[in-house]
Amino acid sequence: MNSFGRIFRISIFGESHGPCVGINIDGCPAGLPLSVGDFTTDIERRKPGAKGTTPRKEDDIPGIMNGVFNDKTTGAPITILFDNNNTRSTDYEKQRAVPRPGHADFVAAKKFGGFEDYRGGGHFSGRLTVCLVAAGVIAKKMLGNIKVESTILEIGGEADIEKGLQKAIDAKDTIGGIVECRVSGLPIGLGEPFFDSVESALSHAVFSIPAVRGIEFGTGFEAAKMFGSQHNDWIQHADGTTKTNHSGGVAGGISNGNELVFRIAIKPTSSTPKEQQTLNVETGEVEAFSVKGRHDLCIALRVPVVLEAVTAFVLADLMMLEQRIGRIY
Amino acid sequence: MNSFGRIFRISIFGESHGPCVGINIDGCPAGLPLSVGDFTTDIERRKPGAKGTTPRKEDDIPGIMNGVFNDKTTGAPITILFDNNNTRSTDYEKQRAVPRPGHADFVAAKKFGGFEDYRGGGHFSGRLTVCLVAAGVIAKKMLGNIKVESTILEIGGEADIEKGLQKAIDAKDTIGGIVECRVSGLPIGLGEPFFDSVESALSHAVFSIPAVRGIEFGTGFEAAKMFGSQHNDWIQHADGTTKTNHSGGVAGGISNGNELVFRIAIKPTSSTPKEQQTLNVETGEVEAFSVKGRHDLCIALRVPVVLEAVTAFVLADLMMLEQRIGRIY
Amino acid sequence: MNSFGRIFRISIFGESHGPCVGINIDGCPAGLPLSVGDFTTDIERRKPGAKGTTPRKEDDIPGIMNGVFNDKTTGAPITILFDNNNTRSTDYEKQRAVPRPGHADFVAAKKFGGFEDYRGGGHFSGRLTVCLVAAGVIAKKMLGNIKVESTILEIGGEADIEKGLQKAIDAKDTIGGIVECRVSGLPIGLGEPFFDSVESALSHAVFSIPAVRGIEFGTGFEAAKMFGSQHNDWIQHADGTTKTNHSGGVAGGISNGNELVFRIAIKPTSSTPKEQQTLNVETGEVEAFSVKGRHDLCIALRVPVVLEAVTAFVLADLMMLEQRIGRIY
Amino acid sequence: MNSFGRIFRISIFGESHGPCVGINIDGCPAGLPLSVGDFTTDIERRKPGAKGTTPRKEDDIPGIMNGVFNDKTTGAPITILFDNNNTRSTDYEKQRAVPRPGHADFVAAKKFGGFEDYRGGGHFSGRLTVCLVAAGVIAKKMLGNIKVESTILEIGGEADIEKGLQKAIDAKDTIGGIVECRVSGLPIGLGEPFFDSVESALSHAVFSIPAVRGIEFGTGFEAAKMFGSQHNDWIQHADGTTKTNHSGGVAGGISNGNELVFRIAIKPTSSTPKEQQTLNVETGEVEAFSVKGRHDLCIALRVPVVLEAVTAFVLADLMMLEQRIGRIY
Repeated sequence: MNSFGRIFRISIFGESHGPCVGINIDGCPAGLPLSVGDFTTDIERRKPGAKGTTPRKEDDIPGIMNGVFNDKTTGAPITILFDNNNTRSTDYEKQRAVPRPGHADFVAAKKFGGFEDYRGGGHFSGRLTVCLVAAGVIAKKMLGNIKVESTILEIGGEADIEKGLQKAIDAKDTIGGIVECRVSGLPIGLGEPFFDSVESALSHAVFSIPAVRGIEFGTGFEAAKMFGSQHNDWIQHADGTTKTNHSGGVAGGISNGNELVFRIAIKPTSSTPKEQQTLNVETGEVEAFSVKGRHDLCIALRVPVVLEAVTAFVLADLMMLEQRIGRIY
Repeated sequence: MNSFGRIFRISIFGESHGPCVGINIDGCPAGLPLSVGDFTTDIERRKPGAKGTTPRKEDDIPGIMNGVFNDKTTGAPITILFDNNNTRSTDYEKQRAVPRPGHADFVAAKKFGGFEDYRGGGHFSGRLTVCLVAAGVIAKKMLGNIKVESTILEIGGEADIEKGLQKAIDAKDTIGGIVECRVSGLPIGLGEPFFDSVESALSHAVFSIPAVRGIEFGTGFEAAKMFGSQHNDWIQHADGTTKTNHSGGVAGGISNGNELVFRIAIKPTSSTPKEQQTLNVETGEVEAFSVKGRHDLCIALRVPVVLEAVTAFVLADLMMLEQRIGRIY
Repeated sequence: MNSFGRIFRISIFGESHGPCVGINIDGCPAGLPLSVGDFTTDIERRKPGAKGTTPRKEDDIPGIMNGVFNDKTTGAPITILFDNNNTRSTDYEKQRAVPRPGHADFVAAKKFGGFEDYRGGGHFSGRLTVCLVAAGVIAKKMLGNIKVESTILEIGGEADIEKGLQKAIDAKDTIGGIVECRVSGLPIGLGEPFFDSVESALSHAVFSIPAVRGIEFGTGFEAAKMFGSQHNDWIQHADGTTKTNHSGGVAGGISNGNELVFRIAIKPTSSTPKEQQTLNVETGEVEAFSVKGRHDLCIALRVPVVLEAVTAFVLADLMMLEQRIGRIY
Repeated sequence: MNSFGRIFRISIFGESHGPCVGINIDGCPAGLPLSVGDFTTDIERRKPGAKGTTPRKEDDIPGIMNGVFNDKTTGAPITILFDNNNTRSTDYEKQRAVPRPGHADFVAAKKFGGFEDYRGGGHFSGRLTVCLVAAGVIAKKMLGNIKVESTILEIGGEADIEKGLQKAIDAKDTIGGIVECRVSGLPIGLGEPFFDSVESALSHAVFSIPAVRGIEFGTGFEAAKMFGSQHNDWIQHADGTTKTNHSGGVAGGISNGNELVFRIAIKPTSSTPKEQQTLNVETGEVEAFSVKGRHDLCIALRVPVVLEAVTAFVLADLMMLEQRIGRIY
């Protein structure tokens, strides 16, 4: 299912080169102020334009179709559509025989029997992340003083992001990166010990962001090298504040009142300008392949606002489950 | 909810020091051969006994209460109970004022208003993983020729596991580790692009294993340092086999016919024999704390069979969703 | 949640006087032929026009936004929108103080804190049933040789429908009716004994059709007066065909290979031209009230195609759960 | 799935002649007082013993396995088991060839490939309703001043219940009945307009009670004969109280502050002592059949407490969804 959430529930739909992509949000509290202008900042942050991002640009003006009345949410489902204007689909048909390396072309054709909309990655396209961002805008509003902030930690292994990016430009290749997310102001008690832990819910949703290869909370993979006496966070204050925050704000799957901290690994964009090899499934021969179209050099650059959004709507759902956000805002 | 899965759906319940822990499995196909003896191998693998594991031992004989008739599953829900025999609860009451560092004691008391069963970690206890193992036994049977295998890669940063363990013994402390899981024989096409990707489903369930701090697929966090031309796996054969397997067997959230490969980071056991500090919530003073009770020195040692189990029941659910396993086995 | 279904899952959204109403369908098999023309017959059947129906008419041309490519479903979510063109919202604001008898005005204002879109019934409007009809069109295609047919049995207690309708016209009032649904060609084995019985699934969805007050399967309420020896259907043939069909095609919650038969009771349209009383919540006084706007005299007249649709998508979901319809059509 | 509910979620399991039947309740608030004695009254009400009920008696002492500590719920899942002591399974094997009229024997064998536990109806048995009653006991406690009461309206078409029963005794046959449920004290605002209406949720769960053939709310099937001006309930007071209650306390799918009223039709017990015909699936011949075993003459007699229970746990879930019951009681 293309849906996530138990109370604040989002569903996304659409294809890269269809008329639009969109999102449906069910369970949003009534009375939340919401208008088109609220989306501008985050949608701009997701847009390409900076060095290392694709030249395909969309207006990305959110079309709020339902669930909002007099600039407030009504409690009914909210649908938001984003038109696809800037598409160039002519070349995709002949490309069908040659599944692009690192892309879902091959598995999509197998899974959907060849009926999938293959233009521009179709339903698999990163284009749909604009919908996640829209859901995030609403969720952030719901979260009030809970602040979700995401930043790039590394590009191509370099903390100096500019330097990492230059490596890719020099190599005429694409490159990956690491993005961190921090959330302050979370109350104690979100999440459940089994199957609905904070980590379970977040990782479930985060792996819907295309190109994510890993997620770690607090010290993450470093924890595997530590002693217990080093890793354990001991409580300093009655509000749950711990001396250290190696656990990243989660204990036993439940938020513990400290900052929530986690990181994700983003693989290099699959569509590299570099020549590669791939199988031609019609001829059965391996052939040289080079990417056509407009693509991001480093997709990690555009991930922070998407990660914030996903984090926000996961937490909004957990907050509603825990009755920390009411049905009327 | 303490449940996972859409078709093959498991629910776990119980506390460390209550009469039993257990699992309910709904949606298992009818006709699968199943008897008590099938559980022996995996339950033995989870049992402590080796160096670095707790001296608390349980018989762990699965009590199959329902859903099996004449040694075959019936299609009705299956309930399996494991008695708790070897419990020592006397000391937990006075420990309440001093939340153990790294444990869920504090958050559990806050979340459940002090009504939680705090003895031995209660519902948060690693004791419940015996239930996950039981579900895994059934799921593995369903998977037939799909083989799920999990191994320890590192303890305390050492590929020589024995050496890593000795570091902890010498330090009189506990230690973490990294566990890998590999699955061969998976068909192409499991998973959905958004919110039900293979990675989403697996990570969701995997973070229910206590002490997991991170998960990565294929090259994982290393991918963040790679160029696209390095990372991309190109298809060699019409069956989807790729030259490399950096993606770990998943493309666009969907299994691609190659080996599924992922790793998880396990933190050091919270219950270290080393003296630590923690807040006494009654006195408001920070005081010295040292762990009582019987605990694992390195919980990662016992994780592989649990990880196999979780992986198996996630995949069994995806296989049923994709109609690769029938309703009658 | 405004969603229904476990595999073939539909979500509806929109308001009577907003820009559009719509539906999202997740889990439809790939490869099902589908184009705008497929919707014409059923959408026309739902349209008013006949004696006893509202003069508000909409074009109701389905806008297929996603999930269909080259006139076949792709396996990705399908979104269909219906524009609202023929709306007259001017009078609703002043009506707010006087909740219409028999309508959801009062409860909606309480539940959603006054933030609901109250124009024309908003999200509660029967307008949204056009979305159910659209889902039904797709579901019926999936069902192939399984035939779903719904007919009016009674209007105002009269089997002669025309006569029942005339009673209402003479009385200058609105009137209720009974609608029956019959499904032939269903395989044995749909449904589960508890909580997912055929009756549970159908009644759950059917009560989403506005104005439904009851549902009964087979002999229904008459069964309460019968002896067991009269009511029991005994099996005549190895294919499950029974001598009688008092159970309406369901045994133990599971389809039994006979015709599925059930009936629903539709209350009279709440918006009657007859003068009534109601509370003015601003003045606190009971006052005379008479309905403004364009309404159906007998909403039951328009229900059959909606009931067919709901039945079809419930059965499509059960068929997919039972793996009788594949993921690729 | 054998589960119901979104927040307060119950799962039932077990077979008539297995070691036990049971229930798992996930999402119960922490801090609710609960002990074995709380179950006595309702479990006694369900027990046979009166004229017209089966001579099979079970102790039905609830075994609370988890989720309760110091006589209060902990917030963790609650499991309750009921032992099956009084079983006589010897004769069921040879009965396999002759599916009992009105029973699920035939469909169960088809659906589960012959692997089902067929003894005493197996998982389809009314025996499992003791689990529903147990869930109801907890739900009723949660509901506090919301009172759920269920009574028999008719047996065999007679309001004089004794008389209806005597008809069956005289005829040496079984007989059906009608049971009504009334709920007072419900707040305004439970339920959603589409797919999660109060009627949808209740009917979904109610059809899990074996032998239910229909459900109607308020005036129900009578509404089909009424004029709008007769049927409409107009509001008298600012608290939502209406002059009449033809809608049975629900408007637009949402509770409206009036008494909730609905009725269900119960078919006559399938296991009638009267001789009937049925197919022998081995010989292919229709043969005379008469029921062996201990059965209820009129199962409707035992339904009221089960209906109360089902109603209570549905409403408890809706109350939690609407945040009218907290996570800590």
